[in-house]
Amino acid sequence: VILGHEYTGTIHDLGEGVKNDFIGNPVEVGDKVVNCTIAYCENCYICNVKRTPTMCPNTKQLSRFTCDKPPHLFGGFAEYIYLPPGFAFFKAPEGVPDEALATANCALGTIVHSYEKVGLEIGDSVVIQGVGGLGLYGAALAKRIGASKVIAIDQVQDRLKFSEEFGADHTINMLEYRTPEEREKKVKELTGGWGADLVVDVSGTPKAIPEGVKMLRKGGRYLEIGCVFPNALFQMDAILFPYSEITMTGVRLYEPRHLWKGLKFLEETKDKYPYKKLVSHKFKLEEINKAFELFDQRKVLRPGIIPG
Amino acid sequence: VILGHEYTGTIHDLGEGVKNDFIGNPVEVGDKVVNCTIAYCENCYICNVKRTPTMCPNTKQLSRFTCDKPPHLFGGFAEYIYLPPGFAFFKAPEGVPDEALATANCALGTIVHSYEKVGLEIGDSVVIQGVGGLGLYGAALAKRIGASKVIAIDQVQDRLKFSEEFGADHTINMLEYRTPEEREKKVKELTGGWGADLVVDVSGTPKAIPEGVKMLRKGGRYLEIGCVFPNALFQMDAILFPYSEITMTGVRLYEPRHLWKGLKFLEETKDKYPYKKLVSHKFKLEEINKAFELFDQRKVLRPGIIPG
Amino acid sequence: VILGHEYTGTIHDLGEGVKNDFIGNPVEVGDKVVNCTIAYCENCYICNVKRTPTMCPNTKQLSRFTCDKPPHLFGGFAEYIYLPPGFAFFKAPEGVPDEALATANCALGTIVHSYEKVGLEIGDSVVIQGVGGLGLYGAALAKRIGASKVIAIDQVQDRLKFSEEFGADHTINMLEYRTPEEREKKVKELTGGWGADLVVDVSGTPKAIPEGVKMLRKGGRYLEIGCVFPNALFQMDAILFPYSEITMTGVRLYEPRHLWKGLKFLEETKDKYPYKKLVSHKFKLEEINKAFELFDQRKVLRPGIIPG
Amino acid sequence: VILGHEYTGTIHDLGEGVKNDFIGNPVEVGDKVVNCTIAYCENCYICNVKRTPTMCPNTKQLSRFTCDKPPHLFGGFAEYIYLPPGFAFFKAPEGVPDEALATANCALGTIVHSYEKVGLEIGDSVVIQGVGGLGLYGAALAKRIGASKVIAIDQVQDRLKFSEEFGADHTINMLEYRTPEEREKKVKELTGGWGADLVVDVSGTPKAIPEGVKMLRKGGRYLEIGCVFPNALFQMDAILFPYSEITMTGVRLYEPRHLWKGLKFLEETKDKYPYKKLVSHKFKLEEINKAFELFDQRKVLRPGIIPG
Repeated sequence: VILGHEYTGTIHDLGEGVKNDFIGNPVEVGDKVVNCTIAYCENCYICNVKRTPTMCPNTKQLSRFTCDKPPHLFGGFAEYIYLPPGFAFFKAPEGVPDEALATANCALGTIVHSYEKVGLEIGDSVVIQGVGGLGLYGAALAKRIGASKVIAIDQVQDRLKFSEEFGADHTINMLEYRTPEEREKKVKELTGGWGADLVVDVSGTPKAIPEGVKMLRKGGRYLEIGCVFPNALFQMDAILFPYSEITMTGVRLYEPRHLWKGLKFLEETKDKYPYKKLVSHKFKLEEINKAFELFDQRKVLRPGIIPG
Repeated sequence: VILGHEYTGTIHDLGEGVKNDFIGNPVEVGDKVVNCTIAYCENCYICNVKRTPTMCPNTKQLSRFTCDKPPHLFGGFAEYIYLPPGFAFFKAPEGVPDEALATANCALGTIVHSYEKVGLEIGDSVVIQGVGGLGLYGAALAKRIGASKVIAIDQVQDRLKFSEEFGADHTINMLEYRTPEEREKKVKELTGGWGADLVVDVSGTPKAIPEGVKMLRKGGRYLEIGCVFPNALFQMDAILFPYSEITMTGVRLYEPRHLWKGLKFLEETKDKYPYKKLVSHKFKLEEINKAFELFDQRKVLRPGIIPG
Repeated sequence: VILGHEYTGTIHDLGEGVKNDFIGNPVEVGDKVVNCTIAYCENCYICNVKRTPTMCPNTKQLSRFTCDKPPHLFGGFAEYIYLPPGFAFFKAPEGVPDEALATANCALGTIVHSYEKVGLEIGDSVVIQGVGGLGLYGAALAKRIGASKVIAIDQVQDRLKFSEEFGADHTINMLEYRTPEEREKKVKELTGGWGADLVVDVSGTPKAIPEGVKMLRKGGRYLEIGCVFPNALFQMDAILFPYSEITMTGVRLYEPRHLWKGLKFLEETKDKYPYKKLVSHKFKLEEINKAFELFDQRKVLRPGIIPG
Repeated sequence: VILGHEYTGTIHDLGEGVKNDFIGNPVEVGDKVVNCTIAYCENCYICNVKRTPTMCPNTKQLSRFTCDKPPHLFGGFAEYIYLPPGFAFFKAPEGVPDEALATANCALGTIVHSYEKVGLEIGDSVVIQGVGGLGLYGAALAKRIGASKVIAIDQVQDRLKFSEEFGADHTINMLEYRTPEEREKKVKELTGGWGADLVVDVSGTPKAIPEGVKMLRKGGRYLEIGCVFPNALFQMDAILFPYSEITMTGVRLYEPRHLWKGLKFLEETKDKYPYKKLVSHKFKLEEINKAFELFDQRKVLRPGIIPG
């Protein structure tokens, strides 16, 4: 398998008969594009009757295609990539930096999907638990579609600082507000005593969940998209469902329309948020091992690979 | 406080200027009515901006009105009851047995509310964990609005038998299917391998939750309305949110429209379900202590009090 | 072209690798099935971004496949039919009469789609303008998913009588209530003065529209699915949009899930409604011209063709 | 009657027990506030069962309160105004110009309400027919909550120019594009051939309707909020409902939450749009007749009255 599922590139060659992108825009060799790395069957109970294709049992994922079969090239860490028929791709909007385009087809698509699922209203308050890549997009998109207050929680001051550039109105540093109780109190303070309308957990630790659900207002919604590994056990009090009417949900991956909406969002906000900074250090393809190493040592926060 | 919040009665006298019920039907002395025992402020962030009045911090509940203040009579275990202004009431539909009317303004209203919140589609499969009063209405209403398969789970064979009269298509006796794994397997079998579209927990035990969420299909919804006491702790795997895209939620109480819809439902199904059996034994008001005693001893399942 | 788009049949032979129907039920030769006669591209702005595939510009319709190309057989008026890959089909539920199955894949699918689009709530009142095939399903499905009052309007007493067998609670004969004003008044009377929550026009005459929109309650919805020919001009007062907040919409065709939901509905109601009567007279395939002739002369109301 | 329903002001005195605004923010004398001029009964079929209170038959409107009854002052063209109990009011957000606050409680509230009703998605294209006050807010809010393309149509070049400052991406001058066909063609061109996702008519002429519905993409939505006078007759082809699946609707007035959301929107965009210009000329209260006169002569476009 060739790794790498967050990338962008230009069209080197087009398959026979391919004249348009997924929504009908004409494309030609040399155009910059972004593509979905997953395709759904659209032909089963989950895809068609329930219309939640990201749960389709017959999903095809590029990242599962092995490079021992021609045309071999299905992963992002390469100079060329082959996109099989049935995988959606979109012409990139003008003027959006590669640094944003490359992260659109995973982090951004997932955030668009999850906000579509829970719904956001004008004036909503949103807490983001953990402001890595998903969290930054979570902050930026929430502000773009109407949220009036985004509160970022993290334990790394640099990340909190950075989140402010992506729309966070307030930050809570876990080294300063040391207990879940202190943080809950702070969120309540910042939300007129009600609690947050939406809490988004992208911290990747199940401990965040019992803490986060207490930050919700009555009737609030909790989005869990960080715990993508098995045995992410958490314990909480079931009374929060009937007595506080909270809703908990999550999403996995995204559909083509979420990627398309993500690109429209990037187009609208390209001058508003510092997308170029999403990649902190650039490496050549042959330096990729070094990049991973430095990332593991936390010497480099958000490395990018520039092939060719 | 005079206890009793599930009841029906006839109008003994009308306050000045009261000519219609809550939705404009003309009423007069002698009409049978059903009323809401809660009123909402309609004048706060929760009621008006978020439109979830059952979460209103300024709720008025009849069951909190004490009998030391005139006109004293605010509870159901009495010959007369006084309904203060602002509490919705509806003329009872013709031909619906008192046994059903009396339970409409709590159990049924709550079920209507919860199904409105999660949405039910034609063809859905529904699992009910625990078939007491809420569970029976859960089964009956699910079938009425389009569910094609209702599966009742309980450990009392009589209750399971009874649930079949209220629409359950299949029953799972916990004494026969002894482990969560066996029950999950049975639900999967009954749902073509997918799992249930909706699982409703009205069992009142938090242990039902980690078991129930595994019975869901990918993208399924879990309704928790049974755990209405604090410290109903449960533990589960957070990966079910992102990887299985499940949704968990619950409701408390109901709004006037849910009671009205419940009455419409009773009117439509009065000949379909054996509502008279909802009260298994009748007692006079002066026998109320005996009724409670026999209920505590489980000698009487669903006692009813008939004042006057 | 071989005509005929409302039909059912049994599997004569299965294509290579076809083992299940569209939602994963195993199928084999001899099984009775129902199929969609349309397939959508799922790969354009309309299908994927806006998720309204019945508006897809790349739709494939069996009724447009000509019989000069092998395997020639794409229409319903024939002994055999070939279903190309990509067209959804479903195993028929047990015990549902052929007379219902044959009409599922157009009339019923369209009604399911349209009710899904506008939403129906428990207790709703529904007016049906014109009770032909679409209107009968409109009445029956409305009652099944919660409507409490269905009012049928037509000028043929036999059709009105028949609609009562399919769920209509009240009928208005246009020969008795002669003017739009009289009919509007009658609808208001039957709906407690409010007007109907939903009016469905399947009469096929644009004159029904300005009349029907006045039958709506404030905030009511109007479904126009009868005027499927160009230049169906109508005139109305635009003030009904802002001042009465009415909504008007319609649908064309259906998606696979609507057909599937329709089959679930038929399964649930097979003993409730007299589906066998949906075909009033049966003809052999070689008598088809006679059937059309008698239908044109209105000597036969709902003819059915039984090949083989 | 004292006229004037679009205004803002500061609290001169508070009624007994009034300590908070409608959503619980503490208020005191001297605070700037904005109020709803309508109150709903919340206690009828329309308010509670159908939850569309702007259609409530028991609405109270300040503009209907006559000045012959104490405390006399219910209209905006005055130095003081008395707000009776039950009418929602909100503390104004800091830094929003009076020119915007004064128009929030009619034009903006109505736009918020109408977009909530039809739903707007990221990437939508929106056509505004007529860019007066409602149209400017229609453009600005559409852009704020995700629309990627707003197209303004008008016959006054100055208004089109002004609409660009409020978010319009493209303008179509009716003096340049002279026929409905030319304008439809231009909209199609600007929307990749699909047509617009949403067309909003605030032109106040019913002729705009048959023109506007043809500008929609298949499945598009049409918002009619301009024709607020009787006999606004229009004629169109009914086939657009089933064959193009368009939806037409409208709203009247707004609920408290729409005003609140409007204020949140103003707060977020106070530096983005030139709200001060919404009032083109200011007049003292005693000059009000002159203001109306100049407006009638079209010498003054958007006059404002500054009492005291």
